[in-house]
Amino acid sequence: MYHSNLLSVNEALEIINKTIKPTQKEVIDLYNGNSRVLAEELQVKLDVPPFDRSAMDGYAVIASDLLTASDSRHVSLKVVDEIGAGDVSEHVMKNGEAIRIATGAKMPVGADAIVMEENVDLDGEKIFIKSPVEVNNDVALKGEDLKTGEIILSVGQVLGPHHLSVIASAGYSKITVFKKPRIGVIITGNELTDPTTELEPGMIINSNKYALKGVIEDSLAVSFVKHCKDYAVELRSEVEAAVEAYDAVITTGGTAISKGDLIVDIVESLGEVPVHGVAIKPGKPFGFGIIDGKPVFMLSGYPVAVAVQYDIFVRGSILKMQNINQIREYRNAVTESDIRSSTDKYNVIRANFKGISGSVEPVKTKAGINKSILMSNSYIIAEEGVGKIKKGDECRVLMYSSLKV
Amino acid sequence: MYHSNLLSVNEALEIINKTIKPTQKEVIDLYNGNSRVLAEELQVKLDVPPFDRSAMDGYAVIASDLLTASDSRHVSLKVVDEIGAGDVSEHVMKNGEAIRIATGAKMPVGADAIVMEENVDLDGEKIFIKSPVEVNNDVALKGEDLKTGEIILSVGQVLGPHHLSVIASAGYSKITVFKKPRIGVIITGNELTDPTTELEPGMIINSNKYALKGVIEDSLAVSFVKHCKDYAVELRSEVEAAVEAYDAVITTGGTAISKGDLIVDIVESLGEVPVHGVAIKPGKPFGFGIIDGKPVFMLSGYPVAVAVQYDIFVRGSILKMQNINQIREYRNAVTESDIRSSTDKYNVIRANFKGISGSVEPVKTKAGINKSILMSNSYIIAEEGVGKIKKGDECRVLMYSSLKV
Repeated sequence: MYHSNLLSVNEALEIINKTIKPTQKEVIDLYNGNSRVLAEELQVKLDVPPFDRSAMDGYAVIASDLLTASDSRHVSLKVVDEIGAGDVSEHVMKNGEAIRIATGAKMPVGADAIVMEENVDLDGEKIFIKSPVEVNNDVALKGEDLKTGEIILSVGQVLGPHHLSVIASAGYSKITVFKKPRIGVIITGNELTDPTTELEPGMIINSNKYALKGVIEDSLAVSFVKHCKDYAVELRSEVEAAVEAYDAVITTGGTAISKGDLIVDIVESLGEVPVHGVAIKPGKPFGFGIIDGKPVFMLSGYPVAVAVQYDIFVRGSILKMQNINQIREYRNAVTESDIRSSTDKYNVIRANFKGISGSVEPVKTKAGINKSILMSNSYIIAEEGVGKIKKGDECRVLMYSSLKV
Repeated sequence: MYHSNLLSVNEALEIINKTIKPTQKEVIDLYNGNSRVLAEELQVKLDVPPFDRSAMDGYAVIASDLLTASDSRHVSLKVVDEIGAGDVSEHVMKNGEAIRIATGAKMPVGADAIVMEENVDLDGEKIFIKSPVEVNNDVALKGEDLKTGEIILSVGQVLGPHHLSVIASAGYSKITVFKKPRIGVIITGNELTDPTTELEPGMIINSNKYALKGVIEDSLAVSFVKHCKDYAVELRSEVEAAVEAYDAVITTGGTAISKGDLIVDIVESLGEVPVHGVAIKPGKPFGFGIIDGKPVFMLSGYPVAVAVQYDIFVRGSILKMQNINQIREYRNAVTESDIRSSTDKYNVIRANFKGISGSVEPVKTKAGINKSILMSNSYIIAEEGVGKIKKGDECRVLMYSSLKV
């Protein structure tokens, strides 16, 4: 069956990690940059704000004019101009003057502070102010947000909406990102058919197709999914074509009885298979091959095993191809019932983490119950050596939501 | 300035919520269903498994044949057939017989249990078994995963990869989902320009365009963004066109000095403006209008205010249009420094929540520092009445990551 003794999860991951290479870079419009991964270090190209500007709707003043202002002694200033956002005043302010100014507008020459509109009484062309202000009060100074030359983001940053906004402000309309990894998926199995209510005898619905497209999308990559029957010649040419066309290949199933491990044999004949069989539960038959330097992840046919194998072995690899180094955050939680994890395996148990009590309830189902994925929000992870966990004991929990980028 | 006294955040949200209507439904291929929102209740259309099947690679047996099996007394059975996945055996099993069977293959007639391959010694056409098995051992029973008629998912469910997989298994190749809300965005401001390093005097880069496209995408909706200068006639016709074309409209800026609240006036002339000015910091000038029954969210021009106004007033509305009722999960954390929140406002303070210590550090910057969004991972929320929070006091934290669906 397996090549030798089962590898540990860490041994398998080490072999996989050595094979993963980042994808090529490409230049895209910043406008399409949400959820892309930065492939360059970004240096600010211009000061933001580009000039001293008002941080409030109000009046530009000379602070020293207001030194004596108080509740009992209002200082009056003459309003000599007004500046809307995007406008510039040519007026050079002198003592005793004020200029009405909009939030974001450039400070007029001579002014050194802003008095908020709310703190001013207006009477015709005059304003009355009843308290002093400090120099630079409510002024946004040139470069106080972003300074030319400052490094704001580095390689591997997953870009969200507000990164894009700051990158725009830093002067970029285009950015260099990693290409989305293109993942070929070959789903094997003579017994698989598209969703239907009229199943032929012995057939089952190909549900992995849908799950894999989704998890690959959630890993910020693009999937190309094919269903292929368990015929060696056809399968071999599909694997060859997929390795040629895509950055990585995922297969499911193909462990057809009396035919041996069909996929593993094919991959081995085209390249090498350094991993076949891992001490993990579920998902033991996991295989990893390399053909022409490209990774081939060989997953089980059972959806629950596929989900676990993807999360443990594939997801991190696809992220790594985009230079994303995801650090998984585990929580500690008290289990609400016994867990029959094996000492010699890396056990992955579907569970419900309960935020309020901080406890976790392992989902009790047989191995093949795919619905269990929907009845749970997390994995309990019991690594090799941990063994059985008793009700009331602490265990490590990995939230599904933390897996998404 | 504002219509009257400032509304509270809750008063504003109540008015907004009354206006939000769900989008139309549409039927799509299940294959494109990742991150879509279910608009129908899904009932299982066929039993899964559709027949009793083997849960292991091994041998189908009659359990009663093995009652006497022990280490010292192996029971021998004759292998009479083999069944690959997707194949069906015509053989009716009799006592003393076994059939080699693949994981997932249909149980042959007469067999009532599976013995794992690992627990069998094979010698030519015979197998030897050294322990009894229970009836249904390693058999996945018809309907044990999904039962015909069972309701598996309901309206408003955001679909992830594993939902799709279960829906496929339940017999669906198409599903009814809510249409993605189409959001028209009108960014106003004479001072705004596309990213460049050669800014004209008084101009600034239009960064809201990028942030809003992203946050709308992250709210599972589609954006149509336009920049429009602060000219009343042009702006009015843009607002009219956007209300006509889209499910909701968002505007930014448009509070140009000497022109009054241009956008608010336009929206009021076309419909009504029940919200203008909310006791929130930052983001006080927020306005909400209704034209022909469609919501118009009027945001500030400043990116930090726009981000907060979007998160507090708009994001939940766009989700609600898809029947997603997002419940925000707050954490409690001890603040590492004083927070100068106002008693009469709903204060939203950018902060860094530190998972390890469980404490939170408010980000210390001036209001206009857009970079502060990147320097933080959460908001501290200090509602009306809370007032100043001292170093060492507990406060409520809302993680940015929890806002994403």
